[in-house]
Amino acid sequence: MALVVQKYGGTSVANVERIRSVARRVVDRKKSGDDLVVVLSARAGDTDRLIALAHEMSPNPDLRELDVLLATGEQVTIALFSMAVKDMGYEAVSMTGYQAGIITDHQYGHARISWIETLPVMEKLREGKIVVVAGFQGYDDEGNITTLGRGGSDTTAVALAAALKADACEIYTDVEGVYTTDPNVYAKARKLRRISYEEMLEMASMGAKVLHIRSVEFGMKYNVPIWVRSSFTDDPGTLVTQEDADMEKVVVSGITYSKKEARVTVTDVPDVPGMAFKLFHPIAQAGINVDMIIQGSSAVPGRANISFTVPKADYEKTLALAEQVSKEIGAGYVHGNPNIAKVSIIGVGMRSHTGVASVMFGALAKENINIHMISTSEIKISCVIDEKYTELAVRVLHDAFELHKDPGNGIRVSEER
Amino acid sequence: MALVVQKYGGTSVANVERIRSVARRVVDRKKSGDDLVVVLSARAGDTDRLIALAHEMSPNPDLRELDVLLATGEQVTIALFSMAVKDMGYEAVSMTGYQAGIITDHQYGHARISWIETLPVMEKLREGKIVVVAGFQGYDDEGNITTLGRGGSDTTAVALAAALKADACEIYTDVEGVYTTDPNVYAKARKLRRISYEEMLEMASMGAKVLHIRSVEFGMKYNVPIWVRSSFTDDPGTLVTQEDADMEKVVVSGITYSKKEARVTVTDVPDVPGMAFKLFHPIAQAGINVDMIIQGSSAVPGRANISFTVPKADYEKTLALAEQVSKEIGAGYVHGNPNIAKVSIIGVGMRSHTGVASVMFGALAKENINIHMISTSEIKISCVIDEKYTELAVRVLHDAFELHKDPGNGIRVSEER
Repeated sequence: MALVVQKYGGTSVANVERIRSVARRVVDRKKSGDDLVVVLSARAGDTDRLIALAHEMSPNPDLRELDVLLATGEQVTIALFSMAVKDMGYEAVSMTGYQAGIITDHQYGHARISWIETLPVMEKLREGKIVVVAGFQGYDDEGNITTLGRGGSDTTAVALAAALKADACEIYTDVEGVYTTDPNVYAKARKLRRISYEEMLEMASMGAKVLHIRSVEFGMKYNVPIWVRSSFTDDPGTLVTQEDADMEKVVVSGITYSKKEARVTVTDVPDVPGMAFKLFHPIAQAGINVDMIIQGSSAVPGRANISFTVPKADYEKTLALAEQVSKEIGAGYVHGNPNIAKVSIIGVGMRSHTGVASVMFGALAKENINIHMISTSEIKISCVIDEKYTELAVRVLHDAFELHKDPGNGIRVSEER
Repeated sequence: MALVVQKYGGTSVANVERIRSVARRVVDRKKSGDDLVVVLSARAGDTDRLIALAHEMSPNPDLRELDVLLATGEQVTIALFSMAVKDMGYEAVSMTGYQAGIITDHQYGHARISWIETLPVMEKLREGKIVVVAGFQGYDDEGNITTLGRGGSDTTAVALAAALKADACEIYTDVEGVYTTDPNVYAKARKLRRISYEEMLEMASMGAKVLHIRSVEFGMKYNVPIWVRSSFTDDPGTLVTQEDADMEKVVVSGITYSKKEARVTVTDVPDVPGMAFKLFHPIAQAGINVDMIIQGSSAVPGRANISFTVPKADYEKTLALAEQVSKEIGAGYVHGNPNIAKVSIIGVGMRSHTGVASVMFGALAKENINIHMISTSEIKISCVIDEKYTELAVRVLHDAFELHKDPGNGIRVSEER
């Protein structure tokens, strides 16, 4: 008999019919002998509806009161869900963030869980009840209602699983798991059976769609096995877990891409100490997030070309700032390109495999896809290319690393369950 | 500087525009220097909408979870209202039943307030904040969310006023106060400036529309001055307060009527001990609520006729039960009339005035309205008449006791505030 924390998203509890079918799912699992804590989001659209109502009420709604308002969304679903479970002859008890002992800091709208008082939930579990917890919400040490921000319910689930020392945390969503790449970009994309926390974090751009990043960090910190599954099928889904020897065998686990950035280059920057600071300080001051930075030597001796990427939205602003700095420090001209994309290959296997980069470069070269920038991390290699080649690049890399083939890294999964 | 508890009903906070105008009202009052606790109901229709949703989810929704669901209604309004107040540059803080320390018993759906932990509210008041409390809801000693039943927000307001030792409790509704009788029945109906708790209770049938009965009992018990006012006008409204000498001067304060009852008569009941028990025990067992009971002597010596009234809905059932008992005890025949109405005159002045009944009987006789039953209490005289004469009776009694004339019993009101 295991203790399992399950989380169902807004689409899974969008209406009474779906709530009933999820309740059926939960009751069947309970019959199998497991103890269950079910974390629910608000019904799909409810949170947006409440936010719209708040803005109808106030030009910029007070943050404390906005959380009081938003918290009602999950309170509705936990009540309805518990009714459904009880109609099926099983004991269920709903708990708001407060009742479930989810204690957070004071940051309304994006509060962080500081700790969880597990006694209330443990007590109900001991009574054999299915505990239905409102996701996304908590309360601070002054008793104010707080919310964890978008995707917060994932964090609630993983945090509860960690605090309750649950055997597993299952995140039910509308996709069947984590894929080698975006299936909309490449039909050959394969659902991963397992992926490490680190890889999952690197896959943020893709992973965020199925699993809230903060919940992955939480899972990694407390080593909570997280299952990403569909609430509409019986597919086992993807297990997000600790890296192990099996995973090392796989060179590349996934391919991600981002079209959200733009490139800016400042040429002929005097190659003397403090120049990078002079350039990036004002940009940071402007609250602009710089991602990649590459410094290469320029044609002019004692000078260097500095290229970096920023969010597309900040492109013009960054150009202006760079121009200004360029004059001050006597650098060359400033140019950039907003029509770029970043394509990345991710895999813990890179640590133990060599020549991964060359395979990537070769595959892109074969399609005459020019690489503008390169950055590498221990388990990730990213290339900046022209935006128009994004999908093509994803496909050729997917083929180059044979991601469509199942390396069988999921075999041990069944034993682990 | 006074401490005032104000309660605004669902129609007063039905939409953002109304919430804003009520917030304006509250802020203006705050400017005048008063400390304010504002109790709010759910937006008009919200509670019904949530109940419908619950029944869509479950044939008979679990009572605990129904309260969890319903409690969201007020949580929405207190959040929106507090946003509006803050936009007007004043400090406001919303509090759910739990946060406001409203502790109740375990009766989900119709919980009774057992006590109020005033510290949290007092603290916020000390900080100069307008405290906005969710009406209708509380929590039991196990931390479960409970609701007080229909009209519960009135009770929340009066209970808070009592616990906080507030100077006044103001109940804002969509009528301007308590009237001498139903204005829809008689245009000459006059709004009362003051009325005693006891009279207000006797006027239940009328009063219930403007003030929840339980809140009046609470007010009487703790002597909380309750103002019934319209949130759409500046009329001072009606003060429900302790009886005093001035009130004694007024013979009749109001006239109520009820068409909800039916009469049943059992003739020739053997006039020996235990007969009343034999007759009414089975009726009570059937859960039927008997209101008036009159026993008169019958034409047959040693026999009595017993007439009583029951809710119209239970008329047929009661007849059947009475027939049965009648056979058992060897009484005469059973007859009744479902087309009756009860008209009552109410006034604490009756205690010190004589001949009130005869004025009532005379007024009805003058219109040839036949009286079938009479019952009297210290401050009330009720007559059962044919239903068709109800409105006529109300009007002639209103004239007979000159209720259209203001006895000036409100003069001292201004001083009292």
